[in-house]
Amino acid sequence: MNIGIIGSGTVAQTLGDRLLTAGEAVMISARDPDLPKDLGQRGILPAASVWATLNFDQGREAAAGVFAEAAAFGELLINATVGTASLAALGAADRADIEGKILVDLSNPLDFSHGMPPLLAFCNDDSLGERIQATYAGARVVKALNTVTAAVMVDPGRLGEETDLFVAGNDAAAKSWVTEHVLEGWLGWSRIVDLGDITAARATEMYLPLWLRLMGATGTPLLNVKLVVAA
Amino acid sequence: MNIGIIGSGTVAQTLGDRLLTAGEAVMISARDPDLPKDLGQRGILPAASVWATLNFDQGREAAAGVFAEAAAFGELLINATVGTASLAALGAADRADIEGKILVDLSNPLDFSHGMPPLLAFCNDDSLGERIQATYAGARVVKALNTVTAAVMVDPGRLGEETDLFVAGNDAAAKSWVTEHVLEGWLGWSRIVDLGDITAARATEMYLPLWLRLMGATGTPLLNVKLVVAA
Repeated sequence: MNIGIIGSGTVAQTLGDRLLTAGEAVMISARDPDLPKDLGQRGILPAASVWATLNFDQGREAAAGVFAEAAAFGELLINATVGTASLAALGAADRADIEGKILVDLSNPLDFSHGMPPLLAFCNDDSLGERIQATYAGARVVKALNTVTAAVMVDPGRLGEETDLFVAGNDAAAKSWVTEHVLEGWLGWSRIVDLGDITAARATEMYLPLWLRLMGATGTPLLNVKLVVAA
Repeated sequence: MNIGIIGSGTVAQTLGDRLLTAGEAVMISARDPDLPKDLGQRGILPAASVWATLNFDQGREAAAGVFAEAAAFGELLINATVGTASLAALGAADRADIEGKILVDLSNPLDFSHGMPPLLAFCNDDSLGERIQATYAGARVVKALNTVTAAVMVDPGRLGEETDLFVAGNDAAAKSWVTEHVLEGWLGWSRIVDLGDITAARATEMYLPLWLRLMGATGTPLLNVKLVVAA
């Protein structure tokens, strides 16, 4: 399947690698696909075009383009941009390349402009998932994967114990498809909780402040929660 | 130890019972301690004074009073009021009965006035824990227990698997004391994560929307999360 990833950062490249390994065709995207990303203390991330070339040279169906090209390419779309830039990135695409498709939104609207820890740019009675769904009424938006770091998204077994993912969206068939093919199939998750319609994106985005505190307390982003319910 | 609970609802009575069983002296409190509470579909909760009399008749050191009496009585204070009413309830006490004491805040500022699910009355760059600490600068506020329902607070074993509680507060000694004596000692918790200073109360209060969705998805409030970290 052709998968268009809106974004080219750590999450886009990590998830793209995993989807290529699963045998799918992946285009990641950026405003300028030839521009490397400065991650500060974490070094320099290769440009989208370099990532694509390195993977293509290994015989994988990898490509890089601008946002509009990834949207046109994808039969399945994944929003992996920085949450505060997601609507602008999607807005660079032809609307017809987004409407009607399943769009997995794994971003969080974190606002780092006030220092650490970041605030949410909006929350409580609003969410990024809802804003994307409202902007593209015909898209089948599924909020998922935004509660774990990229390395855990693509390798849940790394935690040594099964933990939970959460999905939200208005389209039940799209949620089922994403759960079965993306989360369980390509990524290897086994515990997925359907939280309801796209307004439940508020709940998982508002979990981020706790996630950030847990990262601070444990000293690692390689963490997640397991839902435990009384028998 | 004399424990003053600000509040007389389900949480106050459930927690009060557990603390009485542990051998402590407990006063729960209300604006009118003789007024039963209508919990809607869940029935009628006995008035604070009825709860106290029933327990006192069994030889336990139970009492009921107005908010100011519970604050004066307690060597340890616990805020178990509805979060949007907490500052008004505390404001009914003599300030000298709050300053200097450990005050466990287990409330969440849930605002049900817009329907279900509730919103948070404030969040993101503010929290109830912070507002209480800012109002009573000399109080040793510890945010804790606000991420589980009352029946789980007092009986973590009910979930069949060990799960996590979170604490936040500016006073490290107060957090240690609450962890050891209240959470581990009286309530039987074994996994407690210190999230940092009182601003971390934002993180646990903002988890409530996810908690509410999880209750909806699982059909029970008898739930919690276990933190899982890569080895």
